[in-house]
Amino acid sequence: MGNSNNEQKFVKEITPMEENFSQWYTDVILKTDMVDYSPVRGCMVIKPYGFSVWEGIQRVTDWRFKKTGHKNAYFPLLIPESFLEKEASHFEGFAPEVLWVTHGGSEELTERLFIRPTSETIICTMYSKWIKSYRDLPVLINQWCNVVRWEKTTRPFLRTAEFLWQEGHTVHATYEEAQEETLQMLEIYRQVAEDELAMPVILGAKSKQETFAGADRTYTMEAMMHDGKALQAGTSHNLGQNFAKMFDITFLDRDGELKYGWSTSWGISTRLIGGLIMVHGDNRGLKMPPRIAPIQVVIIPIATHKEGVLDKAYELKKQLEDKFRVELDDREEYSAGWKFNEWEMKGVPLRLEMGPRDIENNQVTAVRRDTLEKFTLPLDNLEEKIEEVLEDIQNTMFKMALENREKKTYATVDYDEIKRIFKENPGFVKTMWCENDECEDKLKADTGATIRCIPFEQEHIGDTCPMCGKKATTMVYTAKAY
Amino acid sequence: MGNSNNEQKFVKEITPMEENFSQWYTDVILKTDMVDYSPVRGCMVIKPYGFSVWEGIQRVTDWRFKKTGHKNAYFPLLIPESFLEKEASHFEGFAPEVLWVTHGGSEELTERLFIRPTSETIICTMYSKWIKSYRDLPVLINQWCNVVRWEKTTRPFLRTAEFLWQEGHTVHATYEEAQEETLQMLEIYRQVAEDELAMPVILGAKSKQETFAGADRTYTMEAMMHDGKALQAGTSHNLGQNFAKMFDITFLDRDGELKYGWSTSWGISTRLIGGLIMVHGDNRGLKMPPRIAPIQVVIIPIATHKEGVLDKAYELKKQLEDKFRVELDDREEYSAGWKFNEWEMKGVPLRLEMGPRDIENNQVTAVRRDTLEKFTLPLDNLEEKIEEVLEDIQNTMFKMALENREKKTYATVDYDEIKRIFKENPGFVKTMWCENDECEDKLKADTGATIRCIPFEQEHIGDTCPMCGKKATTMVYTAKAY
Repeated sequence: MGNSNNEQKFVKEITPMEENFSQWYTDVILKTDMVDYSPVRGCMVIKPYGFSVWEGIQRVTDWRFKKTGHKNAYFPLLIPESFLEKEASHFEGFAPEVLWVTHGGSEELTERLFIRPTSETIICTMYSKWIKSYRDLPVLINQWCNVVRWEKTTRPFLRTAEFLWQEGHTVHATYEEAQEETLQMLEIYRQVAEDELAMPVILGAKSKQETFAGADRTYTMEAMMHDGKALQAGTSHNLGQNFAKMFDITFLDRDGELKYGWSTSWGISTRLIGGLIMVHGDNRGLKMPPRIAPIQVVIIPIATHKEGVLDKAYELKKQLEDKFRVELDDREEYSAGWKFNEWEMKGVPLRLEMGPRDIENNQVTAVRRDTLEKFTLPLDNLEEKIEEVLEDIQNTMFKMALENREKKTYATVDYDEIKRIFKENPGFVKTMWCENDECEDKLKADTGATIRCIPFEQEHIGDTCPMCGKKATTMVYTAKAY
Repeated sequence: MGNSNNEQKFVKEITPMEENFSQWYTDVILKTDMVDYSPVRGCMVIKPYGFSVWEGIQRVTDWRFKKTGHKNAYFPLLIPESFLEKEASHFEGFAPEVLWVTHGGSEELTERLFIRPTSETIICTMYSKWIKSYRDLPVLINQWCNVVRWEKTTRPFLRTAEFLWQEGHTVHATYEEAQEETLQMLEIYRQVAEDELAMPVILGAKSKQETFAGADRTYTMEAMMHDGKALQAGTSHNLGQNFAKMFDITFLDRDGELKYGWSTSWGISTRLIGGLIMVHGDNRGLKMPPRIAPIQVVIIPIATHKEGVLDKAYELKKQLEDKFRVELDDREEYSAGWKFNEWEMKGVPLRLEMGPRDIENNQVTAVRRDTLEKFTLPLDNLEEKIEEVLEDIQNTMFKMALENREKKTYATVDYDEIKRIFKENPGFVKTMWCENDECEDKLKADTGATIRCIPFEQEHIGDTCPMCGKKATTMVYTAKAY
């Protein structure tokens, strides 16, 4: 198609991931208009293409929340200083990174306010007021909002001072219900990650040291990025009665006794977009899984000067747009080859080329982004065919990501081997652990890797903890992480 | 139905609007779980029922934005102090009410940041970087977000320190395009207000004094609340080249010349929810227009101890839930009468009662919230019938609101008469104006009413400006306002 020069130009714009994965990531997110740096330290601008991915994530997540009985609400951005002090361990976790509001206009505030880094404190305060009786339980509320954590080192999507997320906060009458909720939400996150984002995840519990400030138990889903590093892609916390006791969330139970509630919280954030990029992307740029892709199908008319081509392309768009998120690139100032590369870079799952020969043969020429395979599709029953292809792309992308993870997953209790792996070929190392903090710290100090989770699906890798040589009590996933 | 006692109890909970409209509003929003006060000064908690109205407004607005080519994005919450100083008149407008962030953790920031009261400054800074050529225009971006204005006097939904809104920001190559955009967005707001919220609005331009800080021209939609006061329900600003010049938004035009862009901004907020309540509500509580109602149909089983009643009610819910937002109130601890009153208070447009006699007759008993009319509907073809009834409720609510507005709209150029009206029967007064600031100020000082807008639909009320007696140049709507 005479686009080899253009392709080279495009390819040149993106640093190959094998050469410098971090630079590859930066190149991709900037060149594809996902995001831009802002003049505010550590804050990003999510550009329309990036934001539409977030809208997609909201779409596939929110209905699952609602189907399981959760409702959305909105709590204040600003929280009085005194609130943070109520839950001591929570305070310690967040105090160093909160932003303080001290003045309104030119007047000093009587009490300093901080911008929410998470909303447990303000939400629990309201719950304490709302919950009186077992009839008020469970409370199942979620909010989609922005939060701010004044982090030192930031990277777009992965770690930014301000980010968008959802935070669910529930209260239950019993420990069992709270635990069930915690795991249910983790399962919803798994569905979003695996079924929608085609991103395979490992589910499990965090170690005590990695547990959320104030929680009894934190569950996580961990995904492997293309460079072998882990990304914590979503967490769900069983908060026990910790927050209920600090914020006095009590209810009169059926048996006439006043009891503390059991609470949970859970969240996913714009971080998932970073994960999506690093799980699927390649040296041509992004690869969007069809279910979440802002544009599922792009139509590119070929030889637009030939009569009828543009008309036919518009007709095709009209035919498809009720069923798919479809875009027609009819820009005159760019060649077809240039467009091919741009839309490949943007990760659109399926490209349809419509040229004079296609019109003659009552077909379109299709190119899959995942495999770059080129083939023709008859215009009759096209919607059905496209649906099949998109479904196949979705499944293939999941499989490719899973294969990459499996290729880079090791199992050993030999500590020298573990150290060698993290030095030479980062990935997931399945190993055993005695559950002592010291061994967790040692692993981190020696390798830079951390215990990502104690997976639900336990395997027998060996009998000893590689760090101390003593008897191991659990199997863990370890990895370097974002 | 034996619910007269219950009804009295409910009615007693809400102050009659004729007695104290302000207290009526407060009672309604709190008793219906729309909102709660928060411990943060001037900030509200939007509870699930209130938030679902906001979700409804987002739903009916966002697709209209997208259909007209706009895309959503997200810009930082925090803005460096230096940005506000760039646009002097904008700065003066917002400086007294911005909140200042001075510390991150325990460290003082090198430059103070303020929380966005609106995002022109940060967005224009990014646009200046993104826009280079006429090919980059128009830029049509919207964001849904929270903003903070540290206001002294606040009321839930109507005026709060933090509120949720959408702010659209566009840049165009010509004045004409920017003006077209400004009016197009106002028309979309009219559709949302009138066609979705059943809230009649007057469209027009703001006076110079009421124009948005930094804008050339502000357009508004003004709605009349049940007490005769006006609510500014949405605004659309033609910003001319003011922001483009301050933030250096230039583009190379087709003719090879470097030119400043023409920009617009426009917004609606959670304030609309307050409007919705005050336009439609009555002494029984809320009245939700069906198109936006979080719950369109509530099913209440009658005599649930009778066999088959609950089953039939569940069956009915199943039959309807694909087509309508439907809720079944199967709570055992409340009587049917109590439930009738609660759901009336919450403003659910249509109540369906399912009891033994209904089952026998293959029907449901229906009660409309707008007219309180009671009638039976056969179960066959029920969906179709309900759709008709909901459509009729929507139209009737619009008509009732319009009638209320017309009843309280006066037309005169007699200044004594104007003063008397605003003293005795607040409403809209259509009058004439010479377009001098002094006369606008005089009206406000004398009556407490302000010029709400210079309506697009001009009428001839008289020849003179009632305030100064000189020749009038335009017709205006005046009213006391929220």
